[in-house]
Amino acid sequence: MTSNEVRKDYLLNRWVVIATNRNKRPTDFVKKQESKQDGICPLCPGNEHLTPPAVLVYLLADGEIVKEKEQNDLRLKDWVLRVVPNLFPVFVVPKQDDVIIKKGPQLANAVGHHEVIVETPCHDEHPAVARVSQLVHTVNAYVDRIKALSSKPYVKHVALFKNYGMDSGASLSHTHSQLITTPFLPTTLEEELKASKQFWNKNGECIFCDIIKKERSGPRFIWENQSFVVFAPYASVNPMEFWVFPKRHQSNMANMSDNEIKDLAETLRVCLGALKTLLNNPSYNFGFHTLLQKDAQDCYHWHLEVYPKVLTWAGFEKSTGMYINMVLPEDAASELGVAVNAELEALQK
Amino acid sequence: MTSNEVRKDYLLNRWVVIATNRNKRPTDFVKKQESKQDGICPLCPGNEHLTPPAVLVYLLADGEIVKEKEQNDLRLKDWVLRVVPNLFPVFVVPKQDDVIIKKGPQLANAVGHHEVIVETPCHDEHPAVARVSQLVHTVNAYVDRIKALSSKPYVKHVALFKNYGMDSGASLSHTHSQLITTPFLPTTLEEELKASKQFWNKNGECIFCDIIKKERSGPRFIWENQSFVVFAPYASVNPMEFWVFPKRHQSNMANMSDNEIKDLAETLRVCLGALKTLLNNPSYNFGFHTLLQKDAQDCYHWHLEVYPKVLTWAGFEKSTGMYINMVLPEDAASELGVAVNAELEALQK
Repeated sequence: MTSNEVRKDYLLNRWVVIATNRNKRPTDFVKKQESKQDGICPLCPGNEHLTPPAVLVYLLADGEIVKEKEQNDLRLKDWVLRVVPNLFPVFVVPKQDDVIIKKGPQLANAVGHHEVIVETPCHDEHPAVARVSQLVHTVNAYVDRIKALSSKPYVKHVALFKNYGMDSGASLSHTHSQLITTPFLPTTLEEELKASKQFWNKNGECIFCDIIKKERSGPRFIWENQSFVVFAPYASVNPMEFWVFPKRHQSNMANMSDNEIKDLAETLRVCLGALKTLLNNPSYNFGFHTLLQKDAQDCYHWHLEVYPKVLTWAGFEKSTGMYINMVLPEDAASELGVAVNAELEALQK
Repeated sequence: MTSNEVRKDYLLNRWVVIATNRNKRPTDFVKKQESKQDGICPLCPGNEHLTPPAVLVYLLADGEIVKEKEQNDLRLKDWVLRVVPNLFPVFVVPKQDDVIIKKGPQLANAVGHHEVIVETPCHDEHPAVARVSQLVHTVNAYVDRIKALSSKPYVKHVALFKNYGMDSGASLSHTHSQLITTPFLPTTLEEELKASKQFWNKNGECIFCDIIKKERSGPRFIWENQSFVVFAPYASVNPMEFWVFPKRHQSNMANMSDNEIKDLAETLRVCLGALKTLLNNPSYNFGFHTLLQKDAQDCYHWHLEVYPKVLTWAGFEKSTGMYINMVLPEDAASELGVAVNAELEALQK
């Protein structure tokens, strides 16, 4: 498999992976009649041979989780969770660790890992309805994979994200997350790191710790448990958008404690459950913002951003980089707050 | 009507218009059953009273275009083209010209104009199939409106764009473009201006003139006529994306000559016609990148960017600001080149 290219715009700090190894010809994008997604699910139990060997499998043995790795034709059964390489990776694992990344001011090698986290054997156990105990496995797998990949010299960032629902760009309906490692820091994270460093240098404080303090007692507060605070961001790009921050300052989510992992699982369950109830099961995307960089430790604060997919970005947004949101973030927070508490109550019954 | 707010992210140079005067409540985004768009078209002839009074109407009198403006309850009939204020404006016209724009480091007043250019009385005369003579009226209207609005002190930018097809975010199917004026330069244009200024200061040349020269004779070239060059950009964000540049250096598209206006109409017709044929009538967005700023005159070069809407940006793109494109821009250019020439040939028959 040949490597993909990452190309930079003539002027903007905007990078595009030209992922031609996905084998799409231009006319493959010819508009097709909507076809119902069905047939065999490659992520369901029994169909393990439809995926490459798993890089991580959680099995249950005597009530304890055992972690395994598959090789060649071996496929483990009765798994609780598995992580497999994407069949059509956007970033491709290099043959050697010391691969050259930057090939020019506008060109880089798209080397890295692209993995699918199959969150549960149950096809429809999406986070909004999942057992919290199963979501704990999901979050543990996030942490395990970040730890395993971040030691590689060509991994400068781990993008961990989820697309839920047809409108979100998801191509498989079995509940799953994805992980892509990039060989340099992507634009949004780079800008966040730069701004948080500036704030740190000026104020000797983490800008996110400051934001959390303010939002926690303000009109955009949604919910909190022992370890996490949830609020609607001041300049929400999407209607009903919310962000989840750990209370403890950490730049890398792989450093979560076991308690924090459990609390994040609960947070995902009740917040995504609330969103499902409020908007009648909307599509959404979420992405973790977490950094591996040593110089991010003091100034950066990892978090999760959840983007409900209820609008389409159109010509205005795409050509100006300015966004339009029809819902006041304060109103979104107020409705989400009520719904999250109802979700928690139902869960505890 | 109260004014909307424009809010800036905590860290990023990302601005969001909180357009609550569109009167959407959070739960208005509850997913609805797909409903076929039909009923009365507010942009069709005979339904003029369903729109606010037009700010510009083109009428045909003795074979010449006459330009009019409507007031109060007056609505002109037998128009060739009309421009009306958007019923649900994202930016709102201020009561006084000297309105205060910036209200803080993260907050601005969303003042400006939001207009709909009804390109033709014929509901389905989209640019891909339109008479070139009608497209000349459209481009003339673009120029007229930019000229009329750019003298206002609170107009720092005119964003002129089009959403075609349900997947593109278009909410009305009658062929139309939109224009939004913003009270400060949006992020993408600001970054382009900054980078082009840097290039100018270093090289004494317009960076776009340099790009055009290279792309015109390279593998991403698509087509040209006397006044315009069309190519697929090196780091195309979207499959089959193409950009249209005037050969003559100008920073503001309102300075087009009559010949250039005719040539742009022809370019729109054959390029969008080719896209329609190649991808079976896909949705698309386009946006003009054009600047009013005096200090942009030497270094900036106005152009049009066309984004076919064949993919959905998902969790990776939204959380990293990095994009994935499955089509090699060189392949897109080659297929589009053949299709544009076929389109032109059919048009000239």
